[in-house]
Amino acid sequence: MAVDERAPIAEIVSVGTELLLGQTIDSNSAYLGKVLAEHGVSHFRRQTVGDNLERLVEALRLALSRSDLVVTIGGLGPTQDDMTRDGISVALDSSLVHDEALEADLRELFERRGMPWVPSISRQAERPECAVALPNANGTAPGLSCQKNGKRIVALPGPPNEFEPMVTSGLVPILREIGGGWVIYSKILRVAGVGESWVEDRLSEFLASDNPTLAPYAKTGEVHLRITSRGKTKSEAAAVVEPFAKRVAETLHPWCYGEDETSLEEAVLAQFRGAKMTLACAESCTGGGLSERATSVAGSSDVFLGGVVSYSNEAKMALLGVAEEALSEHGAVSEEVALEMARGARERFGADVAVAITGIAGPGGGSEEKPVGTVFLAFCWPWGETSSLHRFGGRREAVRRRASQAALVGLRKGLLEAGLGS
Amino acid sequence: MAVDERAPIAEIVSVGTELLLGQTIDSNSAYLGKVLAEHGVSHFRRQTVGDNLERLVEALRLALSRSDLVVTIGGLGPTQDDMTRDGISVALDSSLVHDEALEADLRELFERRGMPWVPSISRQAERPECAVALPNANGTAPGLSCQKNGKRIVALPGPPNEFEPMVTSGLVPILREIGGGWVIYSKILRVAGVGESWVEDRLSEFLASDNPTLAPYAKTGEVHLRITSRGKTKSEAAAVVEPFAKRVAETLHPWCYGEDETSLEEAVLAQFRGAKMTLACAESCTGGGLSERATSVAGSSDVFLGGVVSYSNEAKMALLGVAEEALSEHGAVSEEVALEMARGARERFGADVAVAITGIAGPGGGSEEKPVGTVFLAFCWPWGETSSLHRFGGRREAVRRRASQAALVGLRKGLLEAGLGS
Repeated sequence: MAVDERAPIAEIVSVGTELLLGQTIDSNSAYLGKVLAEHGVSHFRRQTVGDNLERLVEALRLALSRSDLVVTIGGLGPTQDDMTRDGISVALDSSLVHDEALEADLRELFERRGMPWVPSISRQAERPECAVALPNANGTAPGLSCQKNGKRIVALPGPPNEFEPMVTSGLVPILREIGGGWVIYSKILRVAGVGESWVEDRLSEFLASDNPTLAPYAKTGEVHLRITSRGKTKSEAAAVVEPFAKRVAETLHPWCYGEDETSLEEAVLAQFRGAKMTLACAESCTGGGLSERATSVAGSSDVFLGGVVSYSNEAKMALLGVAEEALSEHGAVSEEVALEMARGARERFGADVAVAITGIAGPGGGSEEKPVGTVFLAFCWPWGETSSLHRFGGRREAVRRRASQAALVGLRKGLLEAGLGS
Repeated sequence: MAVDERAPIAEIVSVGTELLLGQTIDSNSAYLGKVLAEHGVSHFRRQTVGDNLERLVEALRLALSRSDLVVTIGGLGPTQDDMTRDGISVALDSSLVHDEALEADLRELFERRGMPWVPSISRQAERPECAVALPNANGTAPGLSCQKNGKRIVALPGPPNEFEPMVTSGLVPILREIGGGWVIYSKILRVAGVGESWVEDRLSEFLASDNPTLAPYAKTGEVHLRITSRGKTKSEAAAVVEPFAKRVAETLHPWCYGEDETSLEEAVLAQFRGAKMTLACAESCTGGGLSERATSVAGSSDVFLGGVVSYSNEAKMALLGVAEEALSEHGAVSEEVALEMARGARERFGADVAVAITGIAGPGGGSEEKPVGTVFLAFCWPWGETSSLHRFGGRREAVRRRASQAALVGLRKGLLEAGLGS
């Protein structure tokens, strides 16, 4: 594959004081980032500025100096705060003109929707002389496509329900035009049960590759690996990515559990479904977090029968049949109690497999022998019982998440070792 | 109130190719934006760059040229992709040194957690000579606080569960130091059980105020109201905010359940604690989500005894004693079954109060009579039984969240009506 032409470079300028103040999370930029990548347009930098003309012009000039295409998001409304039109006019040195056809369209739209006309709306009929308007099917603010001296600015409105359709209808044709037909293909491999350093250590040879590229991302209790290539067609790029991804997954076997958007709970439920087995659980420190994850998967009811959250000792006895002696001799956080909880859940739900979690999530409740983060897992399988002791770091929330993660990894591993799933 | 001194200026530089590619939405920047505003630090621009040393250095130099404080987010991990340390070293012209004390801390941490040491971890013990390390209680990457020639860079790690606590522990003391004595005082009132339009309608008089300001934020099943004032001292600003907040809360009574970081589950558990009452639950469509929320509160075990996730009909019968006739006559999603589930949970956990949730979260399982989003709640109190029917909108995740939210609102209201809590 010869990739020698320079890919066009785009830069996003997000406009809005609410973005800086943190009142709005900039999900539009992430959406646009994916679209740029899919169309083979490079995207190295993003700027965010508030509703301030001077700083907007400064950001646009900087972006124009180093990019082929600048995409602005937001600031196209009718109020004095909305100054993207003015900013582009200054940055491209192209005077604002009042577009009679645009105003006629707007008036027609207002009349059709029965909305009263307000004089300030006329601002939305202004555009830099070098611009053409991009229709907005879901709002009043048209977008702008501006071209001058070999530079392009495309301006899109900020509300996501207007922005996203306009990316497709207004921006994508421009990306196709400047992208020269390049496409990026990428795949994510999801890994759980081993840490980021371990993964990188195993993958050093793959990490050195420059086509495709491999980039690891650490998540709580998981590592995601993004494998990317660029080609003239999707199938050309996929032909580079797919065999490489397969070798990476083999190298990490059995820790790579899925691809792209597949969550660990989805993968584990699918494995149970494939094995025609059912699952139940008993939770103490995770307090329902494992059940919640299992049932977050649509259609989980054919595999997941239910769970008991036995937060008190009395509940462990009454609902799971844990023996009082086990609790008094070993304590609620012990291998023995974990095993009795799992046995109780397996029996009472009539499940093929049960997993139990008991531990100390903190911040209180730790001791020298069993510090905060100590978690026992127990598994009852049709072929026997297993258990494990973990010491998780982090706050209450992280300990609980890592514990449910470890339970899912344990379920996956247990079935794999019995030859069920891949 | 005279506000005439120049506020210090901060600039955020977010680092990570995954942000540009749209694989991660930059919620950290929004979080930090709020914190900067609360501390009276101006924040006019944000830059986002990928994992590329040259562009990172360029962004840092530009930010340093126009800001008093630069905060970087991300790029502090152990891998070759993580180059924030290197970038700061170049931008501030301060050589990287290997910090023996940091390495000793890291080795101790790895040993304590039973994680194998990998040579690449040593990278996290490097720091620019002008930097001091900021401890990270929830991960391995320390933050950095760098100061040279009157400029400051603070570097924080990207995973939100590490980033947010480090904003409080590491960055806020620095913001206080450079803030020049101006303080922003703000308070959030949290409202559940009524919608945003209803709240705005009730508060029109308050919304017109410009000191303090009142801004509503809609969340899933909640509305948050931020009341803000700025003053020379905290008590000066608080004297403006507090009486105003009190009047707002009175106007919204009984729907305003708490302030600032208090979650609805925390408020409800505190109400039970005050009433010296215990709680149990039985969940179908929420699949453990309500238990998970109740137990997310540290120290919840004195109030919350446990729950049953009865996803199958068999589990509803075996673990909660729901009668087969109730299931066959009315269906699993019915008022009758909800009431039987609540009775079963109350009895088996020996709790004062029990709540049950059964419904259709979707995407499948809906019918004309009971469409997706239909949820029955039932409550068993020491003084009787109540139930309610809801029709929630949104996708599976939103229906489940709204159902657990409605259960918590129902618990709060039930105790209030019995004169318990405020």
